[in-house]
Amino acid sequence: MGIRHIALFRWATGTTSEQVEAVEAALSRLPELIPQLKNYSFGADVGIGGDTYDFAVVADVASEADYLSYRDHPEHQAALAVIRPLLADRASVQFNIAGP
Amino acid sequence: MGIRHIALFRWATGTTSEQVEAVEAALSRLPELIPQLKNYSFGADVGIGGDTYDFAVVADVASEADYLSYRDHPEHQAALAVIRPLLADRASVQFNIAGP
Repeated sequence: MGIRHIALFRWATGTTSEQVEAVEAALSRLPELIPQLKNYSFGADVGIGGDTYDFAVVADVASEADYLSYRDHPEHQAALAVIRPLLADRASVQFNIAGP
Repeated sequence: MGIRHIALFRWATGTTSEQVEAVEAALSRLPELIPQLKNYSFGADVGIGGDTYDFAVVADVASEADYLSYRDHPEHQAALAVIRPLLADRASVQFNIAGP
């Protein structure tokens, strides 16, 4: 039984495309740096839904212990330091999945 | 290039475990009924994060057209009819993924 971690972000008014690109660059490094990440996806909302948040991250790990290792990993914390100043709102859930 | 649809739910105060089980029963039927669903996962928050929503759904489809077919499918709408009366809040994103 694994854990799927989801975080949705809503960017503050005035957040630029360059700032979002910096977020994507920071996140894209994580799978190589954090071995607990079994599957990892993220991206900007594509604009086909109503009243959506702006960005999503999905991280699949093997256990609750691995989720905590990922959460507290210095490289993850460094990415959060890029994200936090841009946040207007955040929504998250961790739930059980069959894999990874 | 596929689409990953994420919806996070926060249940209204007073929502019972039986009502959440009814949601899970309604959602569990959808992969058999909606051929556009390539990967589908959902579940209750496991309680290892701070200030989380209560429940997550992740639906992977092959295209924006398939997302719209899923969204508007009568069986999906029937599941939403179970979910909507329980909602205090909802957050969603659709973003591009390499698969499915």
